[in-house]
Amino acid sequence: MFEAAKLGRKVSKEFFKEQVPSLRTALLDAQSRLKATRTSVVILIAGIEGAGKGEVVNRLNEWLDTRGLQVHAFWDHSDEETARPRYWRFWRALPGRGEIAVLFGGWYLEPIEHRFHGRCSDAEIDEELARIRQFERMLIEDGALVVKFWFHLPEAEQKKRLKELARDDRSRWKMLPNKAKFSEQYSSFEQIAERILRHTDTGISPWYVIESSDRRYRDLAVGQTLLRAIESRLEHPEPGPSAPISTAPSLPTTPEAQVTLIDRLDLDRRIETEEYERQYRQLRDALNERAWAAYKAGRSTMMVFEGVDAAGKGGAIRRITSAIDARLYRTITVAAPTDEERAHHYLWRFWRHVPRHGYITVYDRSWYGRVLVERVEGFASPAEWQRAYNEINGFEEQLHENGVIVLKFWLQISPDEQLARFKAREDTPYKQHKITEEDWRNRDRWDDYKLAVNEMAIRTSTEYAPWHLVPGNDKRYARLEVLKTVVRRLDEALAEKAGHVALGTACHRRRVTRPAAKREVT
Amino acid sequence: MFEAAKLGRKVSKEFFKEQVPSLRTALLDAQSRLKATRTSVVILIAGIEGAGKGEVVNRLNEWLDTRGLQVHAFWDHSDEETARPRYWRFWRALPGRGEIAVLFGGWYLEPIEHRFHGRCSDAEIDEELARIRQFERMLIEDGALVVKFWFHLPEAEQKKRLKELARDDRSRWKMLPNKAKFSEQYSSFEQIAERILRHTDTGISPWYVIESSDRRYRDLAVGQTLLRAIESRLEHPEPGPSAPISTAPSLPTTPEAQVTLIDRLDLDRRIETEEYERQYRQLRDALNERAWAAYKAGRSTMMVFEGVDAAGKGGAIRRITSAIDARLYRTITVAAPTDEERAHHYLWRFWRHVPRHGYITVYDRSWYGRVLVERVEGFASPAEWQRAYNEINGFEEQLHENGVIVLKFWLQISPDEQLARFKAREDTPYKQHKITEEDWRNRDRWDDYKLAVNEMAIRTSTEYAPWHLVPGNDKRYARLEVLKTVVRRLDEALAEKAGHVALGTACHRRRVTRPAAKREVT
Repeated sequence: MFEAAKLGRKVSKEFFKEQVPSLRTALLDAQSRLKATRTSVVILIAGIEGAGKGEVVNRLNEWLDTRGLQVHAFWDHSDEETARPRYWRFWRALPGRGEIAVLFGGWYLEPIEHRFHGRCSDAEIDEELARIRQFERMLIEDGALVVKFWFHLPEAEQKKRLKELARDDRSRWKMLPNKAKFSEQYSSFEQIAERILRHTDTGISPWYVIESSDRRYRDLAVGQTLLRAIESRLEHPEPGPSAPISTAPSLPTTPEAQVTLIDRLDLDRRIETEEYERQYRQLRDALNERAWAAYKAGRSTMMVFEGVDAAGKGGAIRRITSAIDARLYRTITVAAPTDEERAHHYLWRFWRHVPRHGYITVYDRSWYGRVLVERVEGFASPAEWQRAYNEINGFEEQLHENGVIVLKFWLQISPDEQLARFKAREDTPYKQHKITEEDWRNRDRWDDYKLAVNEMAIRTSTEYAPWHLVPGNDKRYARLEVLKTVVRRLDEALAEKAGHVALGTACHRRRVTRPAAKREVT
Repeated sequence: MFEAAKLGRKVSKEFFKEQVPSLRTALLDAQSRLKATRTSVVILIAGIEGAGKGEVVNRLNEWLDTRGLQVHAFWDHSDEETARPRYWRFWRALPGRGEIAVLFGGWYLEPIEHRFHGRCSDAEIDEELARIRQFERMLIEDGALVVKFWFHLPEAEQKKRLKELARDDRSRWKMLPNKAKFSEQYSSFEQIAERILRHTDTGISPWYVIESSDRRYRDLAVGQTLLRAIESRLEHPEPGPSAPISTAPSLPTTPEAQVTLIDRLDLDRRIETEEYERQYRQLRDALNERAWAAYKAGRSTMMVFEGVDAAGKGGAIRRITSAIDARLYRTITVAAPTDEERAHHYLWRFWRHVPRHGYITVYDRSWYGRVLVERVEGFASPAEWQRAYNEINGFEEQLHENGVIVLKFWLQISPDEQLARFKAREDTPYKQHKITEEDWRNRDRWDDYKLAVNEMAIRTSTEYAPWHLVPGNDKRYARLEVLKTVVRRLDEALAEKAGHVALGTACHRRRVTRPAAKREVT
């Protein structure tokens, strides 16, 4: 793979000077046309020590318009980053549509490092590379252009450069502790890099290996490759019609063959008021305790509430939040995205609000909107919502690996009960804001929603993040069910001493950290 | 001040039940009308231990529509917060226009704590309270409604409550280590609180002291006070015409009396190519070294580049960034704000990007747009840009206190030189994107800009963040001037051992922290 990077390719000073002006013009032109599109460009810069990755970044800063261009390095971690799933920092750095981000190392830095220092086996690395492929595919399907550069040097050239760098007063400062080592182990590093590149060199996001012995050759090659990549995307803005995706199985048309999970729910389960009051007090106290225990254990919780309109999401959420110390939780009611959010993958806005270790976030509606309202109303294309199941499972898997307890509730009521509640809302002044034209429209689509919910519950119920379907015709019953489930799931998670170790075994998975030292509170 | 909170006020269960529905309806109605306005609402919740601040927050969550409502607690610090000026965390939590944020303690928590634990003298607290007044005024002038509640209990009642809480299994978890202490020292705590309230109880942002012995009285009082505050703001959406603000002095009309700082610059200073090359190499190496030294010392740098069009900002910036390791700096080119940014005070977007300790941010245009283009083009009202000088000075003072090195450059060229450069840009294909209709329009306003620049340089040149006016007809001379200044200012700041201590003396000022442990870099 790296042989082609040891051919001694170079470019004369005259040729370089002659080429650069038209290249810059073309790059700026491409960048400016890009701004009007839905495409974002992610440029990954990686390679061996001494190849001049920093120089390339400076060059890109010079040749491109810095408006709409961001550079991100991932060489140290803030604790806000370590207290969240690993990919949170990358989501943070993703460019919006029409913009370009240059990522130093990006998601390749850690796998390379970990393998090089023997912290991961090949098998563990492979697992991580599968995630990377999935992540890049997700970005690309959402319209991103991912351009990955690997800068390489022959062994002798690298030795020479590192020696020069070490002698040079200016560069001495650049030399962080471990740099020298890499050159000592050139061939072992090369072997690891090749393996990683091979496994992530896909048709939709290929690696460009650039020989870096000659700086002019290197920079021209980067500029032209980038230009071609952007231009060809501008010519073919749409990723092309996807092959029809098989989604739910096709069912025989008899009613019995069409039974859904929802149909199986006994919606009329009830509880008496007194029994409710007794149990509610117990559960409230238990939840309060578990929330503090989870805080102390550094485990965070994400609770998702979905359900048909008027099913009682708000009431259930309030029974939970009023049990928990207000310092520990945050409620997010999902409304229309802002323009920054719209300029990114639809999961971006949810990554944004992932809680830090120890904290609880409660979502009133969630990322499942993609496969519910967006599907039913046609706001998302079939290709978009069909791939969302996989994207969502990937998202929740990462949360789980990071020790986040993921709780998902679907609240269901019968059509008759819904009608009664809609009418009651119209009659109660402080509930009128809760009932809109849209609610009545959604009601007409009852069957479409039922199908969508059924498919969602089947395809995204996972061992670590199962759906809890809650019968809701009796509000009190539903609230207790929710509270019981939350307490039970927290108990299970907190008992998971062994599970904890499991979370930490794979070399990439980050240990759950305790929250920062507690402060005195007035 | 707290006598009125010890009257034993209460409300019967019946009265409460009777009042709540119409109160909720009115609150929801007010909240929904609020959404269409430019007003944001900041609710501050403070008070003595045991008064039920958490219960009030839960109540607000119940009574208000959770869409457009956020709750933020400030009881622990993340390192991303401690590595930035103290108010960064509050800026992060400010609601957008039309939205409501409930802040637990907010900016009052630390002053109270610090004084109570004897870490601050009264004089030091007073300094902080002046900052709080300034901060609240700034928010209010920008359209925010700030509603501050203080919840209070008589001594005996507090003792009783804390005892109950300590006995109660559920609440035991709520009790963080130091809570008991506060009740032991009721009167000393009350004295401190009274002093702090007195100094921050201003006409535009008054404190509401609420007796909290009776929960129903407390919650009704909060709900009604909040309702009245929002409603009265909705009736008078504009803060009212400000009295004409005296800005620059009125000058005699002779030309000599109108001389500006810009006129005093010798724009034609030049340097020979060879001498430039020699000095440039030296300065580049020096800057590289200083950037790493600043990183190691945990000092961050914010560099602002402003100047007339075509004065050479981009070129000067590139000479700086190409000298610095790309992992240490970030360039921000200020463009049109996003809708989230537009929904906040104009400084919000700059607070957002304040670098962490040790890092460098370079701004191509900056917060000075407010007193330059926004003033000249009329995008900001006179009241807005006139108060901006003070707001900007306050912002930079906070940066300075946090150890940020603030560097501000104004690049100036003559009208003739500008014309020549505009023409050259039109003739060079890869520079054409840099020249727009707007540039020609700005040129027609040369004199307006000169006046604005002069006033800006006079009013915002401070000891810790002076303006550096750079003659730019010779690009090379300007670039060297900038580089020299950066190196000198970094040297001065890094030599500031004594200055460092000074930064850390006032009890509120946070010590500069070192960056997180360095990682190995591939």
